[in-house]
Amino acid sequence: MLSDRVRMDAYYNSIFRNKSHFLDKVVLDVGTGSGILAIWSAQAGAKKVYAVEATKMTDHARELVRANNLEGIVEVIEGSIEDVILPEKVDVIISEWMGYFLLRESMFDSVICARDRWLKPTGVMYPSHARMWLAPIRSGLGDHKMSDYEGSMDDWQYFVKNTKNHYGVDMSILTKPFSEEQKKYYLQTSLWNNLHPNQVIGTPAVVKEIDCLTVTVEEILVVTANVSSSIIKEETRLCGFSGWFDVHFRGSKENPAEEEIELTTEPSEENGTHWGQQVFLIHPPTHVCSGDDLNINFAMSRSKENHRLMEVDLGCEVKQSSGKLLQSFKHKFFIE
Amino acid sequence: MLSDRVRMDAYYNSIFRNKSHFLDKVVLDVGTGSGILAIWSAQAGAKKVYAVEATKMTDHARELVRANNLEGIVEVIEGSIEDVILPEKVDVIISEWMGYFLLRESMFDSVICARDRWLKPTGVMYPSHARMWLAPIRSGLGDHKMSDYEGSMDDWQYFVKNTKNHYGVDMSILTKPFSEEQKKYYLQTSLWNNLHPNQVIGTPAVVKEIDCLTVTVEEILVVTANVSSSIIKEETRLCGFSGWFDVHFRGSKENPAEEEIELTTEPSEENGTHWGQQVFLIHPPTHVCSGDDLNINFAMSRSKENHRLMEVDLGCEVKQSSGKLLQSFKHKFFIE
Repeated sequence: MLSDRVRMDAYYNSIFRNKSHFLDKVVLDVGTGSGILAIWSAQAGAKKVYAVEATKMTDHARELVRANNLEGIVEVIEGSIEDVILPEKVDVIISEWMGYFLLRESMFDSVICARDRWLKPTGVMYPSHARMWLAPIRSGLGDHKMSDYEGSMDDWQYFVKNTKNHYGVDMSILTKPFSEEQKKYYLQTSLWNNLHPNQVIGTPAVVKEIDCLTVTVEEILVVTANVSSSIIKEETRLCGFSGWFDVHFRGSKENPAEEEIELTTEPSEENGTHWGQQVFLIHPPTHVCSGDDLNINFAMSRSKENHRLMEVDLGCEVKQSSGKLLQSFKHKFFIE
Repeated sequence: MLSDRVRMDAYYNSIFRNKSHFLDKVVLDVGTGSGILAIWSAQAGAKKVYAVEATKMTDHARELVRANNLEGIVEVIEGSIEDVILPEKVDVIISEWMGYFLLRESMFDSVICARDRWLKPTGVMYPSHARMWLAPIRSGLGDHKMSDYEGSMDDWQYFVKNTKNHYGVDMSILTKPFSEEQKKYYLQTSLWNNLHPNQVIGTPAVVKEIDCLTVTVEEILVVTANVSSSIIKEETRLCGFSGWFDVHFRGSKENPAEEEIELTTEPSEENGTHWGQQVFLIHPPTHVCSGDDLNINFAMSRSKENHRLMEVDLGCEVKQSSGKLLQSFKHKFFIE
């Protein structure tokens, strides 16, 4: 968290420009890490802050709380939020829970659990809202990845031939599983990238909106959306799609923020974040023109092997403005 | 295993130049992976090969056995060697169990367990012997690592200042633990490297000899040695130490190999392996001359947090040939 300026500024401003949400209030920081959000909450006037953290980072958090003279206010608790017992309900839950493309890591589950157990009915969530975005992009990465994949398969073929000739073992039966493994790795695994805004070639679409005060775990297990995007570049290559998120600090309906703060991870020349964007490349790229419409079917679910990782099904129809279908494809991706 | 030619050749030759060890014999391959050693054993004439593997690689191994028409001879068994029950004792245990600097990964424990449970009293081990080597080296890596460490600390100091000024939080209390963490990462973690033989500046010394037929797990939990090395380069910098290993395929005393095969991971211009060498850098380097003697105290034990990783204590006295003590130092390293 600490070395990402965009992230630091967003949380800092959300707290210090909305001090009334913290003044004399009880705050719970879920996954406090080094303790920075808990410390800011206390500095903004909270009367008590519970800073819960599952890892040994609590040692550092405690030192930091002491060094900043907040021992009386911030209580660092080592334990999982699902198990921890607090002596009281809280007015604010603050947390920096967002993973790549918002939901990777599935840490939001713990925040929802904390909310259901410990937030007063009048309480507010920091952040209060979140959105997932998807947009068509152009990128040279796809060509590189395809060439990496082809190189890897060339090496394999050489190896199979060599193993047969030198060592008398026929490995060709493994060519298919090897190829599938390499395809998954090189072509189907989403990439981290801080894209230039110029690389976004169509209107971005929201694929999920979350109200952090009311959403349930069931509602984020699977994210599905059918959205449209219009190509906005004259003539270009559709090389894939990019996913990012934003969150907002709006307080609650009854208790709105004095100043609403936004934290966005959209492609940006100046304000890149450590989250970057997730890039889903299609192979081969396809030619598109200004005015073409994309009809996108998006579905994201958790990996069965590891619920912190994600699988994405992405279908797309490319239509001319006349309505003529130019192309359609469907790809599976893995957010690893 | 498969793409390391030195490794492949050593195992291949150890089997096919010692066919009498395999002809009509029962073989156990511990951690068979893709099954290649089991297949070779069968091709060399074994009447039965048990190929045990704990991971899902067994699927590939079974396919490979079938594709090479050895279904009747090689039996692939998925399970941990500690739990598996074989229907009979075996004449040969073959395994490619060696990790970085021989013992990292601690996979040899499983081979010892297999030997004690399943090897006939007359049985042989493939490989039969192993040695760990240590030698003084020169290397430019140390300067890079020191500069990386210093860069990281500069970034931290900037960050601490910035966090105080912009965000009102004093993080300086964490400078010491941060610095220790960075020191461990940049300066105390051993590095993988395929050294050029020219970089070895003193006579290599054996720090451990293992007879695979008789060694116990207790005897490899901690490796200690007090060894000497003479500097063999005119004037140079002692930048650290390099550790590597070799193994030999000698059969047993009663049943020696027809042709003894060696697999070495020593620094080599032509025959580098995927194991490379482990490099332990000292900071700062020290000036040494031809004829200087190093008295080296070496101790390696398993990490308490993860028994597959290692901790190394390395003490060294540098003496002139006259016996005059030039320098002495002691460093702790981590093989991660």
